[in-house]
Amino acid sequence: MDVITLLTDFGTRDEYVGAMKGVMLSVNPAAKLVDISHHVPAYDVRQTAALLTAAYPYFPAGTVHLVVVDPGVGGRRSAIALSCGRHFFVGPDNGVFSALLGGGLSVDIVRIENTALFHMPVSRTFHGRDIFAPVAAHLSTGLALSRLGPPLAREEAVCLPMPAAHIDNDGLLAGEVIAVDHFGNLITNISGVQVNDLLGRTPGAAAIVEAGGHRIHGLSESYQQADGLQPLAIIGSRGTVEIAVNRRSACHRLALAVGDTVRVAALAPSAGKGAQR
Amino acid sequence: MDVITLLTDFGTRDEYVGAMKGVMLSVNPAAKLVDISHHVPAYDVRQTAALLTAAYPYFPAGTVHLVVVDPGVGGRRSAIALSCGRHFFVGPDNGVFSALLGGGLSVDIVRIENTALFHMPVSRTFHGRDIFAPVAAHLSTGLALSRLGPPLAREEAVCLPMPAAHIDNDGLLAGEVIAVDHFGNLITNISGVQVNDLLGRTPGAAAIVEAGGHRIHGLSESYQQADGLQPLAIIGSRGTVEIAVNRRSACHRLALAVGDTVRVAALAPSAGKGAQR
Amino acid sequence: MDVITLLTDFGTRDEYVGAMKGVMLSVNPAAKLVDISHHVPAYDVRQTAALLTAAYPYFPAGTVHLVVVDPGVGGRRSAIALSCGRHFFVGPDNGVFSALLGGGLSVDIVRIENTALFHMPVSRTFHGRDIFAPVAAHLSTGLALSRLGPPLAREEAVCLPMPAAHIDNDGLLAGEVIAVDHFGNLITNISGVQVNDLLGRTPGAAAIVEAGGHRIHGLSESYQQADGLQPLAIIGSRGTVEIAVNRRSACHRLALAVGDTVRVAALAPSAGKGAQR
Repeated sequence: MDVITLLTDFGTRDEYVGAMKGVMLSVNPAAKLVDISHHVPAYDVRQTAALLTAAYPYFPAGTVHLVVVDPGVGGRRSAIALSCGRHFFVGPDNGVFSALLGGGLSVDIVRIENTALFHMPVSRTFHGRDIFAPVAAHLSTGLALSRLGPPLAREEAVCLPMPAAHIDNDGLLAGEVIAVDHFGNLITNISGVQVNDLLGRTPGAAAIVEAGGHRIHGLSESYQQADGLQPLAIIGSRGTVEIAVNRRSACHRLALAVGDTVRVAALAPSAGKGAQR
Repeated sequence: MDVITLLTDFGTRDEYVGAMKGVMLSVNPAAKLVDISHHVPAYDVRQTAALLTAAYPYFPAGTVHLVVVDPGVGGRRSAIALSCGRHFFVGPDNGVFSALLGGGLSVDIVRIENTALFHMPVSRTFHGRDIFAPVAAHLSTGLALSRLGPPLAREEAVCLPMPAAHIDNDGLLAGEVIAVDHFGNLITNISGVQVNDLLGRTPGAAAIVEAGGHRIHGLSESYQQADGLQPLAIIGSRGTVEIAVNRRSACHRLALAVGDTVRVAALAPSAGKGAQR
Repeated sequence: MDVITLLTDFGTRDEYVGAMKGVMLSVNPAAKLVDISHHVPAYDVRQTAALLTAAYPYFPAGTVHLVVVDPGVGGRRSAIALSCGRHFFVGPDNGVFSALLGGGLSVDIVRIENTALFHMPVSRTFHGRDIFAPVAAHLSTGLALSRLGPPLAREEAVCLPMPAAHIDNDGLLAGEVIAVDHFGNLITNISGVQVNDLLGRTPGAAAIVEAGGHRIHGLSESYQQADGLQPLAIIGSRGTVEIAVNRRSACHRLALAVGDTVRVAALAPSAGKGAQR
């Protein structure tokens, strides 16, 4: 397919992204390079893993995803490449692929050890340019994964636990804020499917979303549906509960951040009437 | 042509731009994707309209321009596509195309209703990814506009009044700052043609540009022509009066912002000599 | 090759980068456009020269590098194009190519005077769009450099002195910080080759890096090698000494900035043991 995406914490000010692209075009002149983001919070492997999962499924089969959030560059962490669901992934073995490895999909993994593919000499501080970029470009030309190096068993790769929403001791669906987007929308890990399951147990129930002392009644159909500056909850573009304020930053107004707890309760119809009095 | 431009208020930190590009490459693998900007002030439909008009004419005929500044996503606003001057445009019907609709050019408009072209399921919060991106990609492959949905009369589309410069009661050419660029240059909506018309009425007259209590004599040929930190006026790259300070931010030094009034007077030669005493 | 890189101080908020890309695609529909950076500090010709040199060698032969950091636009500076080491360069004659012109490589230079290649009318403030972009696109189609205008002798082009590391009066290798990257790493102009030369004179010597009252013993093999928040020195991706703090901003912790002096001494083995007591 020749499509290669880039996901890094490099920012866009320095020569780093450009140098990687130059290396890739030198290997595969037909490569189509697409930036996912270069503004992942520096060194944040978990947010990288979540962002990758939110973006990669929208790309065509055969796409190679280059992921370089790599605080351990030059140290003992391995360089790996993965094949999963007709997509390819290249990056450090430090947890950036945790959402893939921890999911139910079949994954093939290799350690990248074929130095003939590297850009020489390999620097101590920029394997993105010298190892990951040329390897990604070679994969994009159709080189087999097995040509990069020996296989790595799935359980040997670094897989960080990704926070998952669950039913807590109070019978509430408990999750957390996992990202705050450019608009200040608070994106949680509570899926719409989980919310529907919860509501399905109580006929006619409405969802109540609680976070940081705020209590939101019901799920909105659009950002505009809430009155004025009232916070609203909506199933967002990742398919999960999102807390938002129409045309405002929910992050600022509600003073919530990544890691904060969000809970969803099912309010029975009668209780709901009571609450509205 | 396969060229598709993107203009949004999404920023570049999240997965949003990448996901749209993935969807477009899935529909049209030959698409050439060009970012115009993802840093339009959030929800600012008027600045989007002005920025689009400043950029699109430089693209080749057949280019599709994807515009997603869409605070009303998921609500009642329509999704539309336009053909104008051999360019195509796709986005929400909320005024982002006002500069096109309010101009003198011929425009064909359709409502986007052909759900077979959408990326399913359509989310409540991200029609950029699920509706506008795939439709833009289909247009870039040569699909006829009429295949997207029924025609919409020009007067039915949302067209916000764009601020226009005019001769005021004092006989001055009055406009306003419509953008502040990265360098802090203050870009107005007073065209060089209007200034020339004004000056043409008074043989030998020089332009006086007034803004926020500042008074600039004459138009400069280059940013460097002004002395030191003096503000200067120049016909800028949009063909309009721009207020600048050489190698400095005019926005900061003059404390002017978008919406502030700028006026141009024609100073007769004798009056000019008087002023120089 | 059809690859054109862009390096500017335009930021990415306005229509400027998009308009240049539109002009280039209008001239060469097959152009592959790659951003190096649009976030060079405004008007900073020296940082541009250094950034260009750090990025361009990674691109394939035949690449055209468009460089528009151009505070003198519309004034008397010339527009030039260069051929150097199978790469092409287009931009203002103001020093942005100093690192090329001051190096040992063979360079051919022409003044850009062939107005038939320009985007008309040429504005006073945006030669990036009206002159440099279309000329770069024409070069990318294979147009000969000589078709752009008359040759310019190397000594006639503006070549700013780039700061170079040297042995100072104390016998130390003295250089300076020439860039601070997105992570806060302090990148110097002291090459690893120079450090090795210095160390080679004293058998068994270790490098001592001094900057702003801080003293770093030895060069690290990776960012992680230093303890906690201790600063470390490492040969970075430009092949020069870089001062860093593991997972932190060395710029903030050491309060150093571009232009600050960095010195390297060779510590003899016995002195080293003494120092460790």
